[in-house]
Amino acid sequence: MDRKDIRRIAVFTSGGDAPGMNAALRAVVRTAAWNKLHVYGIERGFEGMIDGHFKRMERRDVANIIQRGGTVLRTARSKRFMTPEGRAQAAEHLRSYDIDACIAIGGNGTFTGAKVFSEEHNIPFIGIPGTIDNDLFGTDYTIGFDTAVNTAIDAVDKIRDTADSHNRLFLVEVMGRNSGFIALHTAIGSGASSVLIPEAETNLEDLKNVLKKNKARGKLFSVVIVAEGHPMGGAAGIAERIQDELASMEPKVTVIGHLQRGGAPTALDRLLASRLGHAAVNKLMDGEENVAVGIVNSLITTYSFDDAIHREKKPESALITMASILAI
Amino acid sequence: MDRKDIRRIAVFTSGGDAPGMNAALRAVVRTAAWNKLHVYGIERGFEGMIDGHFKRMERRDVANIIQRGGTVLRTARSKRFMTPEGRAQAAEHLRSYDIDACIAIGGNGTFTGAKVFSEEHNIPFIGIPGTIDNDLFGTDYTIGFDTAVNTAIDAVDKIRDTADSHNRLFLVEVMGRNSGFIALHTAIGSGASSVLIPEAETNLEDLKNVLKKNKARGKLFSVVIVAEGHPMGGAAGIAERIQDELASMEPKVTVIGHLQRGGAPTALDRLLASRLGHAAVNKLMDGEENVAVGIVNSLITTYSFDDAIHREKKPESALITMASILAI
Amino acid sequence: MDRKDIRRIAVFTSGGDAPGMNAALRAVVRTAAWNKLHVYGIERGFEGMIDGHFKRMERRDVANIIQRGGTVLRTARSKRFMTPEGRAQAAEHLRSYDIDACIAIGGNGTFTGAKVFSEEHNIPFIGIPGTIDNDLFGTDYTIGFDTAVNTAIDAVDKIRDTADSHNRLFLVEVMGRNSGFIALHTAIGSGASSVLIPEAETNLEDLKNVLKKNKARGKLFSVVIVAEGHPMGGAAGIAERIQDELASMEPKVTVIGHLQRGGAPTALDRLLASRLGHAAVNKLMDGEENVAVGIVNSLITTYSFDDAIHREKKPESALITMASILAI
Amino acid sequence: MDRKDIRRIAVFTSGGDAPGMNAALRAVVRTAAWNKLHVYGIERGFEGMIDGHFKRMERRDVANIIQRGGTVLRTARSKRFMTPEGRAQAAEHLRSYDIDACIAIGGNGTFTGAKVFSEEHNIPFIGIPGTIDNDLFGTDYTIGFDTAVNTAIDAVDKIRDTADSHNRLFLVEVMGRNSGFIALHTAIGSGASSVLIPEAETNLEDLKNVLKKNKARGKLFSVVIVAEGHPMGGAAGIAERIQDELASMEPKVTVIGHLQRGGAPTALDRLLASRLGHAAVNKLMDGEENVAVGIVNSLITTYSFDDAIHREKKPESALITMASILAI
Repeated sequence: MDRKDIRRIAVFTSGGDAPGMNAALRAVVRTAAWNKLHVYGIERGFEGMIDGHFKRMERRDVANIIQRGGTVLRTARSKRFMTPEGRAQAAEHLRSYDIDACIAIGGNGTFTGAKVFSEEHNIPFIGIPGTIDNDLFGTDYTIGFDTAVNTAIDAVDKIRDTADSHNRLFLVEVMGRNSGFIALHTAIGSGASSVLIPEAETNLEDLKNVLKKNKARGKLFSVVIVAEGHPMGGAAGIAERIQDELASMEPKVTVIGHLQRGGAPTALDRLLASRLGHAAVNKLMDGEENVAVGIVNSLITTYSFDDAIHREKKPESALITMASILAI
Repeated sequence: MDRKDIRRIAVFTSGGDAPGMNAALRAVVRTAAWNKLHVYGIERGFEGMIDGHFKRMERRDVANIIQRGGTVLRTARSKRFMTPEGRAQAAEHLRSYDIDACIAIGGNGTFTGAKVFSEEHNIPFIGIPGTIDNDLFGTDYTIGFDTAVNTAIDAVDKIRDTADSHNRLFLVEVMGRNSGFIALHTAIGSGASSVLIPEAETNLEDLKNVLKKNKARGKLFSVVIVAEGHPMGGAAGIAERIQDELASMEPKVTVIGHLQRGGAPTALDRLLASRLGHAAVNKLMDGEENVAVGIVNSLITTYSFDDAIHREKKPESALITMASILAI
Repeated sequence: MDRKDIRRIAVFTSGGDAPGMNAALRAVVRTAAWNKLHVYGIERGFEGMIDGHFKRMERRDVANIIQRGGTVLRTARSKRFMTPEGRAQAAEHLRSYDIDACIAIGGNGTFTGAKVFSEEHNIPFIGIPGTIDNDLFGTDYTIGFDTAVNTAIDAVDKIRDTADSHNRLFLVEVMGRNSGFIALHTAIGSGASSVLIPEAETNLEDLKNVLKKNKARGKLFSVVIVAEGHPMGGAAGIAERIQDELASMEPKVTVIGHLQRGGAPTALDRLLASRLGHAAVNKLMDGEENVAVGIVNSLITTYSFDDAIHREKKPESALITMASILAI
Repeated sequence: MDRKDIRRIAVFTSGGDAPGMNAALRAVVRTAAWNKLHVYGIERGFEGMIDGHFKRMERRDVANIIQRGGTVLRTARSKRFMTPEGRAQAAEHLRSYDIDACIAIGGNGTFTGAKVFSEEHNIPFIGIPGTIDNDLFGTDYTIGFDTAVNTAIDAVDKIRDTADSHNRLFLVEVMGRNSGFIALHTAIGSGASSVLIPEAETNLEDLKNVLKKNKARGKLFSVVIVAEGHPMGGAAGIAERIQDELASMEPKVTVIGHLQRGGAPTALDRLLASRLGHAAVNKLMDGEENVAVGIVNSLITTYSFDDAIHREKKPESALITMASILAI
């Protein structure tokens, strides 16, 4: 791959949407324009690639979107792209638009699709990690994570008002699929009594003891954060297992739900998305391909799709320990 | 009852908490202080009245609480107060503190307790309507309703980001117990496609047709607001009944939940709570008793506990009609 | 004017923008569409009318704007419209598009222009009151007022954090042009120590005494809200007059500024704008003309442009009194 | 210094307040309690140290403060502490309470005071960097910076609504004292047209050309972010220099002001403050002294007070370049 070759690129968002995807798209389009590249936006991810939904994007087309949640290119999960026929059709469209390279904004599934496709059809890809779950190896933060955590904390702050007024126990379930990042950060940020995540063993006896001790010590209410992917069945599963013994605390379950995916991105997500979108174009120009961009120790980096897909990223155990010390 | 008699009053919050209760408490305490009354705050509503949890409250004790959700006096539902023995004990405590009258901040259940108690023990009460549900006859607005609606709309605004990005159908359940006020106002304010409330008949065929027509017309996603008290079983119940036929829209259910009870009160709730708290003391001074204060057509008014408890308040049908015209 | 005649209408926003204008526009377009009227949107108010910037608007053109601040039709102040020549050109454009009636969303200046124009060129107008200042006679609330007050209160809540931490005096200036509505409602809602508005006499000696007494009583910080139109020169003017005597409180001036005009509209502003936009079309269909729609005591009403322009609306004195009692 | 020696510590906040200081305080108190240390909180920083305003703080005393802006210990700037007599008096109080070490939460001025004092009176200090300005060498982020940037961006998002509606130029001044971090991050996050900071040369001709070119290219409004410490006199100074030439854009100045200091801390600030408060106690237990804790490349680190005070931290030039590319 040679720098001179990259003249026309395509960009799309795929998989679950995340706040900041628009900021990343804006950065891709403007950095590309600054480098005299032509950019095409593909609607609805791999679905639009198969259906040929391409549109030319210039600087002004990404004006006034940096602050918007969701993705103006829309997104989808594509079953057809899992078939060789679907991918062949997509490749045809890319060729008909003379696309030299693609930038894919999404998570694990997106990168898996990109890897298979680029190997099959020899079109270079750069990935930008966009998912609220922060579960991608290779980057300290994914786009949307900080916004989701802030939204969850804001919700828990509100729930505390009512928990506090009623002296109650609340089990609050947050998103994150199989990963506990959102739950752990929400728990620390909201001063929760406890946090239950898939990455750490859950001892229900300990949990019950902590809650009882807290009450004995004068703590008037308790909030426990549970990751949706918790193997005991999320917040509802935990509640079922403890409610008899803690009935006097009137345990309530609340699932924060899809609002965690939306909303104006935070400052950090806008900055991260801008940096990663900008870097993705620069890395393409530098001749890199089939890697994702990321941020590690505040610096831009790249990592292979394989690593992103197969290696596991886990919350630091030091943070888990700290959370329990500060919750006392 | 003669004005000179009111020298010492007690105030408490009871039932479900609502944002703005603190602002009402502040207004009660400061208006009372301005009128040289002594004020006692009772903790945890009727429970604290039975247990004698009274504390003297002066002007500075309600500083810096106008912006806080929940209630600093805490609240509870009291089973003991439903027994004559419990109420006798409460009356004893009021007498031992020489309380001439009580101000109760709460909803239907609170007013019912106040009515029974004041008849039994001859202690004058004034009620202040505090409930997010807005289901109290006699007042156009209850304290907390505007905040709850704003919280729900903010959540739906966020859900729209992701609904829009995925071209999906969302069924969003909001609070309100048996009443559809929160649902109707949330639906109008969030531009929802449809709203299902207990006070209006639900025709599922119409609903499905509207959603299909919208899609045919180019509407890319739909949000339907469902009141938690909807007789078909809230949002989950509706989803079950329509999901087969609308499977292509990938219907998702989300329950906004307890965060609707919390948060800093809105401007309107702070103003309303301030006016009602101020009026409650003034009405007591004027010799009124066993009524609740309210706001009708922007003016302070009073209404009997009986009316508040037994008469029904329903959303205006004109608003329901307008909601469906604007949703098209 | 006869109901049958109204087939095609134009709508525009003019003067200062206000949150909720988009919700009003949406309601106009959708109610008109429901009544089979054709709607044209005019860009940049009277400027666009003179320049012929009209565009057909259908139901889907106002999708997804109810939550946006500002106005998608943009707005402007037009000097040319103050000349007979400018207005003649505007009338020509309206005729060339066969417009039967206009709906103008704006404040005092907008209604003045509408009145002069409709008299000169015999085109019926309906006004919708949109201004954050709430200074229009004939309606209890104008579109944007509730949002502006909430924004101001949110800002003061933040300023209190720092005022409280430093034991300081803050003079906070809010918008409102010559009117004190925003200031008064912000002061009540934020629990300010005092409020200075053009509609009430300001006694600086009293102000200084209140602040000193508060300090003596243990109040650790004070926030004074000043209307921008205060005749002593806003917050800066007041500060100059009191700072020597209150130097120990380290008085700081902060001007909240233009952010009060923007942001997603509140629930109340979305509902109000929806109701007024809906009513404006209905009133046109009913044959009314050259009036503005409004809301008085929760009911839709109309009032002449003359009243809106020439009669004065003032904050209730009872609220001013209450504010000072609760501030103690 | 030996671990066994640290039995009683004091903690205080000093200088300008910053959101997250309460979260840091909570982490200090709870980590200390977990380590069986006794903690005293000192009110109003060095002022309270001189006046002997100490209070015992236990776990429950820092409950429910993680989400609050400002500082519950209050803060002050102390002239008396700049004199040897003032410091001697402070040392006396520390000795009378048997304090083995102090933890100081604040910025540059706080660390300077700590350094002088600990040298004079041989009491070990650990500093925690709390300032919205992010201008402290030795740590990537200071507590409060992320919140301030989010508040500023939220304000600019609102100002854009009105700027966009009117096709106007806004010059928005943000805080940061002599540093441009807040301005640069706000500009990137809000998609501003340009940013003017003390650390980069300002070429007014370039600025005017960019704004004119943007307008020619169809950009309908422009927002320029100016750091308060900009040597040309902040936003007002810049406006004065460009307004004649750009009069057609109706340039407006708005100063966001003190609200940037307040508000509930963001997720990141709560996490950062928790980590730094936790680390400060751990470092004390490890025998470190007269250093500040910080975070560099996501890892906890320490640095001498001298470095914090005398070495300069500047925004990365790569970010400044990126900001201008993305603004196009």
